Amino acid sequence: MIVLGIDPGYAIVGWGVLRAEAGRYIPLASGAVLTPAGMPFGQRLQQIYEELTAVLQKWQPQAAAIEKLYFQNNKTTGIGVAEARGVILLACQQAGCAVYEYTPMQVKQAVTGYGRAKKPQVMEMTRRLLHLKEVPKPDDTADALAMAITHGQASISAMRRRTLEAFRQ
Amino acid sequence: MIVLGIDPGYAIVGWGVLRAEAGRYIPLASGAVLTPAGMPFGQRLQQIYEELTAVLQKWQPQAAAIEKLYFQNNKTTGIGVAEARGVILLACQQAGCAVYEYTPMQVKQAVTGYGRAKKPQVMEMTRRLLHLKEVPKPDDTADALAMAITHGQASISAMRRRTLEAFRQ
Repeated sequence: MIVLGIDPGYAIVGWGVLRAEAGRYIPLASGAVLTPAGMPFGQRLQQIYEELTAVLQKWQPQAAAIEKLYFQNNKTTGIGVAEARGVILLACQQAGCAVYEYTPMQVKQAVTGYGRAKKPQVMEMTRRLLHLKEVPKPDDTADALAMAITHGQASISAMRRRTLEAFRQ
Repeated sequence: MIVLGIDPGYAIVGWGVLRAEAGRYIPLASGAVLTPAGMPFGQRLQQIYEELTAVLQKWQPQAAAIEKLYFQNNKTTGIGVAEARGVILLACQQAGCAVYEYTPMQVKQAVTGYGRAKKPQVMEMTRRLLHLKEVPKPDDTADALAMAITHGQASISAMRRRTLEAFRQ
């Protein structure tokens, strides 16, 4: 299964594509969409849409995993991030790619086995699981790869549940 | 000048197109994108994007006016509205249509001359300014037309300011 992980934003959108097979993860490509601060917001949205559409077309992922959004203190930033996220969801929809949402705690749990792990631990485990020499940069790209791993782990859990249920019947 | 007014949302997106000429407003078309509650969110975004893109292509507005978004109590709804708004901004950007944002108070001021007018007053003045027999339905469509009028009024004010400044120089 090819999975695209996405860390949404409007200044930086981290993304990572990996092949998930029975708990093993092979990184295929990763990067970040970077939009300059001085660029009009509509143009930033268009750049995000076009670059992610290109990634979706090239790698044809069966699933996209994206962080579930909550609003916190900085409400103005929050609106911009949600607007960018809308554009990302549209690109996935148009590419026929199913979208799955995970909370930061689910990512920590899936990658490190501990839902309250610190960010450096998540980054280091992401690096190890992908057999990379270094943690990918920027952090948003590493976060996106961790998100993709989370979907791989969730799929295994879902498959195990289905198998158990089949035994019970 | 052709102006598209938009009242953003994900269940209902009101829209209205009018021709604004020296303080006179001629309604050309209006309506609402309605997405069913049971539809997956990505599909709702796609429907909004496609229907608004069709409106933009048909009427070729020079400007789009859209409500400036603030988050209030219902944060979950707020995220969905902002995501839909992102898709709307993308459609405008791709159509080469400049986007202008106005607050509810600016709309009330522009349409009724009073920034704290009640909703029925804004609706009634919108109806009169557009020489319509009835207030357009749903409310979201009337709100979108009021938004378009607001941009027309703001453009006149801006033009007067520029003319005055030219006199002063």
